[in-house]
Amino acid sequence: MAPGVLPPLAVTMGDPAGIGPEIALAAWLRRDVEHLAPFAILGDAQMLSARAGLLGLEIPIARIGRFEEAATTFARSVPVLDVPLATPAAPGRPDAANGPAVIAAIERAVAATHAGEAAAVVTNPIAKSVLYAAGFRHPGHTEFLADLALRHWPDEPAEPVMMIASDLLRVVPLTIHIALARVPGAISTASIVKTARIMAAALDRDFGIAQPRIAIAGLNPHAGEDGSMGLEDRDIVAPAVAELRAEGLAITGPHPADTLFHAARRATYDAVLCMYHDQALIPVKTLAFDTGVNVTLGLPFVRTSPDHGTAFDIAGRGVASPSSLIAALRLAASMAERRCGRSRVARS
Amino acid sequence: MAPGVLPPLAVTMGDPAGIGPEIALAAWLRRDVEHLAPFAILGDAQMLSARAGLLGLEIPIARIGRFEEAATTFARSVPVLDVPLATPAAPGRPDAANGPAVIAAIERAVAATHAGEAAAVVTNPIAKSVLYAAGFRHPGHTEFLADLALRHWPDEPAEPVMMIASDLLRVVPLTIHIALARVPGAISTASIVKTARIMAAALDRDFGIAQPRIAIAGLNPHAGEDGSMGLEDRDIVAPAVAELRAEGLAITGPHPADTLFHAARRATYDAVLCMYHDQALIPVKTLAFDTGVNVTLGLPFVRTSPDHGTAFDIAGRGVASPSSLIAALRLAASMAERRCGRSRVARS
Repeated sequence: MAPGVLPPLAVTMGDPAGIGPEIALAAWLRRDVEHLAPFAILGDAQMLSARAGLLGLEIPIARIGRFEEAATTFARSVPVLDVPLATPAAPGRPDAANGPAVIAAIERAVAATHAGEAAAVVTNPIAKSVLYAAGFRHPGHTEFLADLALRHWPDEPAEPVMMIASDLLRVVPLTIHIALARVPGAISTASIVKTARIMAAALDRDFGIAQPRIAIAGLNPHAGEDGSMGLEDRDIVAPAVAELRAEGLAITGPHPADTLFHAARRATYDAVLCMYHDQALIPVKTLAFDTGVNVTLGLPFVRTSPDHGTAFDIAGRGVASPSSLIAALRLAASMAERRCGRSRVARS
Repeated sequence: MAPGVLPPLAVTMGDPAGIGPEIALAAWLRRDVEHLAPFAILGDAQMLSARAGLLGLEIPIARIGRFEEAATTFARSVPVLDVPLATPAAPGRPDAANGPAVIAAIERAVAATHAGEAAAVVTNPIAKSVLYAAGFRHPGHTEFLADLALRHWPDEPAEPVMMIASDLLRVVPLTIHIALARVPGAISTASIVKTARIMAAALDRDFGIAQPRIAIAGLNPHAGEDGSMGLEDRDIVAPAVAELRAEGLAITGPHPADTLFHAARRATYDAVLCMYHDQALIPVKTLAFDTGVNVTLGLPFVRTSPDHGTAFDIAGRGVASPSSLIAALRLAASMAERRCGRSRVARS
């Protein structure tokens, strides 16, 4: 490997009945116009060939034995490290029999990153319910990755924090997939402080933003308006802001969430820590629906993924947009580049 | 009054220590370029002259005795129906002594609309805390207007529903100024049904949208995802949607809120009924920060207002944007025009 050139990105196939395979193929087709760094897909090579054929795409699939081969292969064909499925995958019809291969692809991606063979992990969407039937025991994709991180990097912290990043806005939801009624009881000063610290470190290390400015959104309308609409902003959020500022971090808040996301305000911070799912996801999906990237901060390796699900309902029809995966590939490359302190990623 | 010409709009001064007076003056200066229908300000004429002077604006103030004079006066000077303050108003320093005049201006605006002298009520921001000291006993501006509606139109329903309307998006929050923790307990199938009916009627009558399409946002992330993240969407929202559809209304939902507000989705509906303040206000203020208009549906008269507060912190400095008030004036005129079934509003 030439000095100053990162290894390829490791892209997992995701659920083979979803849109993962076709958006990965579509991203490869746009490798030049999007200036994508080389990647290799961890997935079933035969399935990928068949999917290309189904979509009428003439895409050469190249089985490779080692990641480093992807650097040269990538210009001419899709480099694939074969992870064979147990049974042929039908778009839109997930099959638990293929769960072990889906999981193995993720495990191999992390292992390759740990070994320095891959620069970062870019995951395609999985369907938890399908994997549960295959013995998967994690609450979600990210928790599984955190578990793999601890397996490979036992001495490094693995505290995953989900960020949705786009060119217009970066947001982190403090709480994610829980009922709204559980949100007020689920936020704490400690979790805000911990999450904001991870955000600040990642914005510096992975995004190249020295002394990042983080705005913290209030939980209640108008951030509680001095306690007249809920006490959490005063009693939980404000003390976290004070603690973080005392550490020298450029943290502000709690801010009323409704006026936090227009263009003039966005110019005043680098990322927003929100209290719950829709508070974070509404603005970023309103502003950048197709190009948001799900980034996992707080892990010892770089991981990004497209900000959408398996989309079984449209899989195999060639209508799925690869925009978010392309954005995820680009962001993973730039994060890996910064984290490794190297000057550039190999371009196709 | 010529046939086919609406009477002037009644604009209340709002709190004279806030930005209301200066944005009203600024709107009048832009009457031609914005094609504003004539309006008259209900406020203290001397205060308005003084505020213009403070801001270095040469604006002639014309005291008028009756609304109809505004139609001709408006081209040359700001028509004002004098509502004298008890004490001179200092920008940024609200004074409870002026509360009665602030209230009187609102009362006179509604009375003039009832009498057919004014086409609609456009209110500038008030500060509830200041008015409470003056004996104001209503939870807010809108509830006061509903009370005035019942006083003047005892036989018509007065069920105010707040909509924020912009060129890009119209939203209604089902619950408004309450703590987030209280939201799940505050929504009900009955209130969703009632609010959606008022929205549908208003979109037809006041906005000229026959068979309006209303999207209803879910309360929980992913609209609860089949009950795995909260049961309210299944048990409260979905039955309301079913009931409304059975009435023949073009209602859909509950929709996951995060993916409801990007451009492609916005093309599929005319308005969104949201479950809480930030769910509604985040997308509209992200998309149209300066030009959102607060519209009160469900009253026997047309009422709009700028979508911001008194902004005491910047009052008297000439930096407040009149954009939202201008949008409120334009929308009030178009709503009044439609509601009265007349062909056009008099233009300046």
